[in-house]
Amino acid sequence: MANVSVTKTFGILTAGGDCPGLNAAIRGVCRPAYDRYGMRIIGIANGYRGLLENNTFLLKPENFWGILTRGGTILGSSREKPFKSRSKDTDNSLGEYKVGMIKENYRALGLDCLVVLGGNGTNTTGCLLAREGLNVVGLPKTIDNDIVGTDLSFGFSSALDIATEAIDRLHSTAQSHSRVMVIELMGHKAGWLALYAGVAGGGDIILLPELPYDINVIARHLEDRARSGKSFSIVVVAEGALSKEEALMDKKDRKRRRQEEGSPSVAYRVAREIERETGMETRATVLGYTQRGGIPSASDRVLATSLGAAAAELLARGHYGRMVCLDGSRVGSVSLDVPAEKIKTVPPDHYMIDTAVAVGTCMGI
Amino acid sequence: MANVSVTKTFGILTAGGDCPGLNAAIRGVCRPAYDRYGMRIIGIANGYRGLLENNTFLLKPENFWGILTRGGTILGSSREKPFKSRSKDTDNSLGEYKVGMIKENYRALGLDCLVVLGGNGTNTTGCLLAREGLNVVGLPKTIDNDIVGTDLSFGFSSALDIATEAIDRLHSTAQSHSRVMVIELMGHKAGWLALYAGVAGGGDIILLPELPYDINVIARHLEDRARSGKSFSIVVVAEGALSKEEALMDKKDRKRRRQEEGSPSVAYRVAREIERETGMETRATVLGYTQRGGIPSASDRVLATSLGAAAAELLARGHYGRMVCLDGSRVGSVSLDVPAEKIKTVPPDHYMIDTAVAVGTCMGI
Amino acid sequence: MANVSVTKTFGILTAGGDCPGLNAAIRGVCRPAYDRYGMRIIGIANGYRGLLENNTFLLKPENFWGILTRGGTILGSSREKPFKSRSKDTDNSLGEYKVGMIKENYRALGLDCLVVLGGNGTNTTGCLLAREGLNVVGLPKTIDNDIVGTDLSFGFSSALDIATEAIDRLHSTAQSHSRVMVIELMGHKAGWLALYAGVAGGGDIILLPELPYDINVIARHLEDRARSGKSFSIVVVAEGALSKEEALMDKKDRKRRRQEEGSPSVAYRVAREIERETGMETRATVLGYTQRGGIPSASDRVLATSLGAAAAELLARGHYGRMVCLDGSRVGSVSLDVPAEKIKTVPPDHYMIDTAVAVGTCMGI
Amino acid sequence: MANVSVTKTFGILTAGGDCPGLNAAIRGVCRPAYDRYGMRIIGIANGYRGLLENNTFLLKPENFWGILTRGGTILGSSREKPFKSRSKDTDNSLGEYKVGMIKENYRALGLDCLVVLGGNGTNTTGCLLAREGLNVVGLPKTIDNDIVGTDLSFGFSSALDIATEAIDRLHSTAQSHSRVMVIELMGHKAGWLALYAGVAGGGDIILLPELPYDINVIARHLEDRARSGKSFSIVVVAEGALSKEEALMDKKDRKRRRQEEGSPSVAYRVAREIERETGMETRATVLGYTQRGGIPSASDRVLATSLGAAAAELLARGHYGRMVCLDGSRVGSVSLDVPAEKIKTVPPDHYMIDTAVAVGTCMGI
Repeated sequence: MANVSVTKTFGILTAGGDCPGLNAAIRGVCRPAYDRYGMRIIGIANGYRGLLENNTFLLKPENFWGILTRGGTILGSSREKPFKSRSKDTDNSLGEYKVGMIKENYRALGLDCLVVLGGNGTNTTGCLLAREGLNVVGLPKTIDNDIVGTDLSFGFSSALDIATEAIDRLHSTAQSHSRVMVIELMGHKAGWLALYAGVAGGGDIILLPELPYDINVIARHLEDRARSGKSFSIVVVAEGALSKEEALMDKKDRKRRRQEEGSPSVAYRVAREIERETGMETRATVLGYTQRGGIPSASDRVLATSLGAAAAELLARGHYGRMVCLDGSRVGSVSLDVPAEKIKTVPPDHYMIDTAVAVGTCMGI
Repeated sequence: MANVSVTKTFGILTAGGDCPGLNAAIRGVCRPAYDRYGMRIIGIANGYRGLLENNTFLLKPENFWGILTRGGTILGSSREKPFKSRSKDTDNSLGEYKVGMIKENYRALGLDCLVVLGGNGTNTTGCLLAREGLNVVGLPKTIDNDIVGTDLSFGFSSALDIATEAIDRLHSTAQSHSRVMVIELMGHKAGWLALYAGVAGGGDIILLPELPYDINVIARHLEDRARSGKSFSIVVVAEGALSKEEALMDKKDRKRRRQEEGSPSVAYRVAREIERETGMETRATVLGYTQRGGIPSASDRVLATSLGAAAAELLARGHYGRMVCLDGSRVGSVSLDVPAEKIKTVPPDHYMIDTAVAVGTCMGI
Repeated sequence: MANVSVTKTFGILTAGGDCPGLNAAIRGVCRPAYDRYGMRIIGIANGYRGLLENNTFLLKPENFWGILTRGGTILGSSREKPFKSRSKDTDNSLGEYKVGMIKENYRALGLDCLVVLGGNGTNTTGCLLAREGLNVVGLPKTIDNDIVGTDLSFGFSSALDIATEAIDRLHSTAQSHSRVMVIELMGHKAGWLALYAGVAGGGDIILLPELPYDINVIARHLEDRARSGKSFSIVVVAEGALSKEEALMDKKDRKRRRQEEGSPSVAYRVAREIERETGMETRATVLGYTQRGGIPSASDRVLATSLGAAAAELLARGHYGRMVCLDGSRVGSVSLDVPAEKIKTVPPDHYMIDTAVAVGTCMGI
Repeated sequence: MANVSVTKTFGILTAGGDCPGLNAAIRGVCRPAYDRYGMRIIGIANGYRGLLENNTFLLKPENFWGILTRGGTILGSSREKPFKSRSKDTDNSLGEYKVGMIKENYRALGLDCLVVLGGNGTNTTGCLLAREGLNVVGLPKTIDNDIVGTDLSFGFSSALDIATEAIDRLHSTAQSHSRVMVIELMGHKAGWLALYAGVAGGGDIILLPELPYDINVIARHLEDRARSGKSFSIVVVAEGALSKEEALMDKKDRKRRRQEEGSPSVAYRVAREIERETGMETRATVLGYTQRGGIPSASDRVLATSLGAAAAELLARGHYGRMVCLDGSRVGSVSLDVPAEKIKTVPPDHYMIDTAVAVGTCMGI
């Protein structure tokens, strides 16, 4: 507990895609900040857009009471990225205007600090605002687990539970119908969710963005399984997965080609390729938005609450410009420069890839 | 309990799409048939295909012990419809051959009766085989709940749970992002699953095949909600839902047009129409195969076990040519003619439609 | 939809033990009552106690918006039974006073009707108030499913899910340790929950209040199982279950004896008797209050919403003195006299008992 | 992957209380051991007792195929502790005999190594056998998370999910009835499960064995809550929790006193004390065996599979005398001396205690 306890005012916002645990984290920040340190809390609606448009309100205890288990975010969210507007304009006028407005509103609200809950984009914006002179504290939330500087982000554990349950369900259908079932999971450009859910669900093949796949390897693996009497298979595909061929293309060409093929989702592409190469009946499922909603898992509530409480401590001590993080089994913080403008992908030598391979999973390579 | 207890032999198969509760029903038939009536049980693999190909085996107690909670079907399934082959051939040779083979194998196996677990198609085939002189007992399974002659089929309750949970999850995302979320549920040509899950999940709009929708009614409802401060909405769409315009087309034209539009799934079509008509940010999710897999719900286990035990009684009493059913809160049976070649859709005056409308749900009409 | 739409005022309260679906039912009554019929709604806090103490408030749309999935009751509850006070006092002064106060407050609030959500006690009180001249509409809620006049009460389906999941969990432990696991479920004096959860969970022995058990029958069944290689068993016990010996005692003697034995809960008693008679390692679990809390199941939300909407129709039409009910697969209503002062126990010839026996479950008799 | 691949034989057993993830771990060891390293695998039934009684069998791929998601253990378990028998006998004859038998059977079976899956007791026995000259590899399983040498044991995550869900359910009841609900969780002498589930469930008071409680502190906290308008509370109690007074007693006196009071479970004791001190209506629930059964959580499957695969590597490399472990976010191993004869309790300065206190939870001190 910090010794300092001067009355401070901070603003709090949630930005980017919503995910389970946001409300738990808001409560985790606000309860100690209010009860222990007597801070004033300004809720900012709909992410950075609310700060731009000065859409704010005084956050009172009754607002953050009883929200621990609630999905979504009581503050609302948006994908507004003020600096992105800046970088896209050649004359920078829109971006400059936005960043200026944010700084002006930050001051007008009398904020001592801005607390931002979000993923890579949100913490990157937080870092850039810190470089502009604002006091910022970030919290890492994302179901993709792709934030540099923390071992784990809240949201990931809930998405892992949901995705694993979906794979479990597909198992019965796959087995009863002797089918190949392809399931596409979220994860943006990182394979964390597909890798962990694939291992948890006993996926026979797991395809990650980090390891471009070879359809021949996949086909051979499926045929080997069929020969050994296993007439069904589960293929877990990260939304960012791509073939070896696609990996050599630039992003635009890849996108154009997928649209020509009539399968913007990688799951449909992989399913079609499997049917073509093996003749096995194959079905695709894109799990979609159900992965990011609903009641947070117990683990996410614990993590979100701990990171929230750690953020309140940073506020009390005036340690700004930092993102709270999980480091092994301790809670700590890193400079906001650490996550900014990067993403954390699965390293090819990660032990979970070894684990998957050890239990017989084909990684498509 | 029947007084009769001569030793009988029956074959048992599961056909059509798999669904939760099949194994519970197999156990429900086999345990009393074996323990109480001492019958011999022949398991038939992969639905009617197994009977065609004589892919069968002696089913022993250890095979149906401990399967109550398991998803899928221990017997495997297929979509083989022998009579359909018959009607499609002008000279009927393939269909005649198949039906002949089934009758031959039925006799060769020394069956006193054939027990078939499945949906409309399966029980229709069962009825046609009964008309060909075989003894048949049917059990109604389907997540679509569209079998005539029974108030409820097993599989429906589990699918309802899964679909409702998915809608719950979308609620948080819809609310956090002020979006319209469209979710497409299964149900074939009937709206039971969408209607019940829509009411259970608090869907703001529910679209059923039985009530062709008008996009203008939907758009107006969404705008009314927005005006009253509710900036998000959940739209639950049955896979068989169609617009008033489509309802006038024949099936082929409808299919062709959807493919031209690039949205074979109705959810994508509805989402695009909503965005076009209202300008609201809209996202679509097709729940897919996760709706039919996994551990059966408690209600499905109870229903499947009861219907299975009722089927065993029919076997013991020699009451053939019947499908077991739930009638109000009693278990009974109807002639296999009742479900044959029909489907049970939602009547427009069903009380659950009234319920949905009463709590403010727009039915798109 | 009723044609009548004069502006009416009604009070609404929830009484007795809470259960999943209460909020869904409140929403089911209030949305059509408010949106369609323009009624004024008075929320009454903490059951009949709130009406006694005039602890009431105007219920607004924002109060019953978004509560469909929430556990518990937004109105609070209590076990206050005004007429019980009356009957217990020899001079009746307290009871007379309470009933008088309720009638006075009913009039002072300008109520056209009082809507009561609860179990046997609540609907009995509702009936007695109707006999005193008040307009009353009742809704049947209870996890015990013991209300006369309705096939199903909301709360039962959720409790069934929870209890079945608990039995599933005990299975792994029982099997791994070759133990007998006894689990005690709620149900008051009726065995519905134990019977249905016992069948759903594959209980090897199910003990109901309606069928007093013989420990020798149980012991013999367990020994038979052990001989056939099944070294573990699950015993599902209704909280009201009692032995043949206890069935002959009066309630006080039974209670005294159980306390002397040091096992007020029947599960502990049964576990001790099994250990004594068979020497098998036996453990008891009393599931307790977790059976009545949390998010309502999809089925309970559907039922509660339908019954709520049906109650709103009764209000609009001025059909008072009735309890809404599920009758087969229709929603309807019965006179409040039907449920009053009775409980619905499991009839000995109920098909679910046949089902349990058919799949090899011992009922202890 | 180890380079070594000589054909080896190892025995595998599961001992102590069962928990979710045991089968996932067995599969995690056996699949790479068999597929990649071609080892022979001897399954040992019912823990160390099976090794004593030579109750063993050849474990084949079909035995460990499809068991990832199954609760319990396919090997069975027992609480046999051979060395404990030794230490208890003054002349040591029984213990010596047992340890001798185990060594004899180990040799007779031609084992290169013995793989033991279990908690503190199991790994302690493993360590003592290693000191007797056997090759042993241990895996840490326990819902208590009290094994020294690993950050996390499998089983804990599943128990956390179950316990948290139970607390969620009690919340609705507590709130609806303005009650204090006391829930007792497992954890043996450590407070990990109560602490994490208490934070995840938003417990208002959390009592751990590591922090003896003062009933006056608890009473004051409840009264403060009541004064601030929160008329209900959730008290999460570890089964090993004890009052300050009890902490000064020796174990026997404590046990005797609890029995005199008629409440062997601490939850009942705490509930009674709260009612006595505050007059608030209080109810106790002992969650019991449901905490250790059923399908493992996604996180437990991932952890169990990884630790299993790591154990297979130790086998392949001949690194014996070790327990695999999770160290931060890496999988590794420690000497079996590390966990032997110790338990890992919650350190008073653990960040999760800080977290609980930060969000307003009273720790009873």
